[in-house]
Amino acid sequence: MSDGTALTGETIPGTVLSIDAMGGDRGPSVVVDGMANASAKNPDLRFIVHGDRPELERQIDRKRGLLAKCEIRHADSVVRMDEKPSHVLRHGKSTSMWSTIEAVRSGEAQVAISCGNTGALMLMSMTRLRKIEGVNRPAIACLWPSRNPSGFNVMLDVGADIRADAEDLLQYALMGASYARNGMDLARPRVGLLNVGTEEHKGRAEIKVAADLIGRVAPAADFDFVGFVEGVDLPSDKVDVIVTDGFTGNVALKTGEGTAKMISERMREAFKHTPLSRIAALLAYTSLRRLSKSIDPRRVNGGVFLGLNGTVVKSHGASDATGVAAAIKLSARLSASDFTKRLAARIAQAEHAAAAAMQTDADKGAAE
Amino acid sequence: MSDGTALTGETIPGTVLSIDAMGGDRGPSVVVDGMANASAKNPDLRFIVHGDRPELERQIDRKRGLLAKCEIRHADSVVRMDEKPSHVLRHGKSTSMWSTIEAVRSGEAQVAISCGNTGALMLMSMTRLRKIEGVNRPAIACLWPSRNPSGFNVMLDVGADIRADAEDLLQYALMGASYARNGMDLARPRVGLLNVGTEEHKGRAEIKVAADLIGRVAPAADFDFVGFVEGVDLPSDKVDVIVTDGFTGNVALKTGEGTAKMISERMREAFKHTPLSRIAALLAYTSLRRLSKSIDPRRVNGGVFLGLNGTVVKSHGASDATGVAAAIKLSARLSASDFTKRLAARIAQAEHAAAAAMQTDADKGAAE
Repeated sequence: MSDGTALTGETIPGTVLSIDAMGGDRGPSVVVDGMANASAKNPDLRFIVHGDRPELERQIDRKRGLLAKCEIRHADSVVRMDEKPSHVLRHGKSTSMWSTIEAVRSGEAQVAISCGNTGALMLMSMTRLRKIEGVNRPAIACLWPSRNPSGFNVMLDVGADIRADAEDLLQYALMGASYARNGMDLARPRVGLLNVGTEEHKGRAEIKVAADLIGRVAPAADFDFVGFVEGVDLPSDKVDVIVTDGFTGNVALKTGEGTAKMISERMREAFKHTPLSRIAALLAYTSLRRLSKSIDPRRVNGGVFLGLNGTVVKSHGASDATGVAAAIKLSARLSASDFTKRLAARIAQAEHAAAAAMQTDADKGAAE
Repeated sequence: MSDGTALTGETIPGTVLSIDAMGGDRGPSVVVDGMANASAKNPDLRFIVHGDRPELERQIDRKRGLLAKCEIRHADSVVRMDEKPSHVLRHGKSTSMWSTIEAVRSGEAQVAISCGNTGALMLMSMTRLRKIEGVNRPAIACLWPSRNPSGFNVMLDVGADIRADAEDLLQYALMGASYARNGMDLARPRVGLLNVGTEEHKGRAEIKVAADLIGRVAPAADFDFVGFVEGVDLPSDKVDVIVTDGFTGNVALKTGEGTAKMISERMREAFKHTPLSRIAALLAYTSLRRLSKSIDPRRVNGGVFLGLNGTVVKSHGASDATGVAAAIKLSARLSASDFTKRLAARIAQAEHAAAAAMQTDADKGAAE
């Protein structure tokens, strides 16, 4: 707060975002570019930016009017992509990531954003912000391009934890429904459970138990449970929230990304193939741009950590400025809806319903 | 064999395929269409066709010259898509699926093909054909469009079994490498293990153990182990064979399918959007057709059951004639390379290497 870039804090209207400028694959310049883009569209946004001060000052100063909206907080070191989360937690106090989370913890900022090491960010967020009462495993939710009116579905967990038992899956359903309600304006989200088939007898034991639990809690928790969905339904309009464990969700997310990328490449090749197809590409330029935008993973950049006392948005490690701007936009929207508090209230309310459902199970089990 | 459609059997050169004409979503007519397509390109193929005789005779008789290449075997009933595999196994002797597998069991046909209920087909195949000595869990392998010269990668298991421990994953690596070697002419396939990250410390415990086992067996088993791969690598040219459990593999397969389908739809919409883009679509017609063919899931139709005494090819339930023809072509190729026997030999050979590796583990564990 020493160099004229200080933020006047509580008195400024609008949202304050805490941004880790260092952790991404492409360095701080794309983060600053993304901040500038987002700031141009949403002039009320304020930023606390964490990282190497001289570098950040140079970068931010290049963008007209941005410096006045930023407070720069110097951090000596950076969490590397290949560092073990547990190691980062022990030795990471001087990192830009730590500092980014602290600004949310202290209440100075409403949302933390980082392009850095996902595992470290999750572990640090869990340790510093702590889990919401009643949540066993936090989850990362992503937006998935779909045929729904909003253009997206929510999927969780996409990588916070590689395990999830039936109760965790129930909590993911509650958290995902709350996210869809507050972040996407869906009064009564439809929740589906990812499985290898839609028939009742299919899938792992914990998934069958989870289906039963979620179905029983749904009415009281104001969402509709549509039962099992398959991989092919992820982009469909059958469902708004897709619940799965973090291993499966992460593989599905990256598979969708890889498939879309390969098809885009082949499309570009196809249009270079003959002189006629080159002319075609020119004629269809605007249509193709629209298509490419609608399947662009950068547009849906931003995994949201759910289940913590504070909102943390993980931007893709390889994000460019467009991706960072998307993550900032998402963060601003979540901050405006104050959804962390609403989610906590939902979890508390649903806990009773779930406990009752599981007690019934236990009683039945004992009677059998 | 009563009605002039009899096959003269051993004296005819070429491959005899046993085809379940009944189990698919679209009924026997698409199966017969697919047989006709495949037969036109490969006139040496002979078929034993199972299902409702009057219906099949009528359908096959419509195709010039096809009846002479077919033997029709009547079956009273059909396995439904929603039937439980265990129920089918107990009551399924009169079904076309059962009859289809019996023709391979008896040695009359080399490969069985069905578009029916996957779980029932797998359980019936396992029970009737039995597992190869040394194989604990058979697997279903699929071909995945990729940037490799062949245009495909192999992924397994995509749904034979929802569980897989470290030893199962090792066997999948051996079976997948053998499939790539015999079915795709790759002398030294590159095998990768699907995980949520490529760093060594990531993933479930059984996956880390499997990575160690596969790495140690690879040199003796004539494949290269490239370590962990992620969802985004499935269509890449980093790897030829992707090993995973059947739950994850099935979700990934269907996610890729769903993503490709959504993008194709949006592409069609984009080209209808303006008069200019409609003209563009005409100009780029051949390029777009080539693109659409290269990402068409029907072209890679045919999951191969690996690890059984006999080859079974599962065609997609919603296959059209193009899809059925692709499954028949794949079956003919597998029959020609006689790969079930080669695979059995590989498993037997590698079993010793694996046992040695695991013994070393046990010794180390005891010493620690």
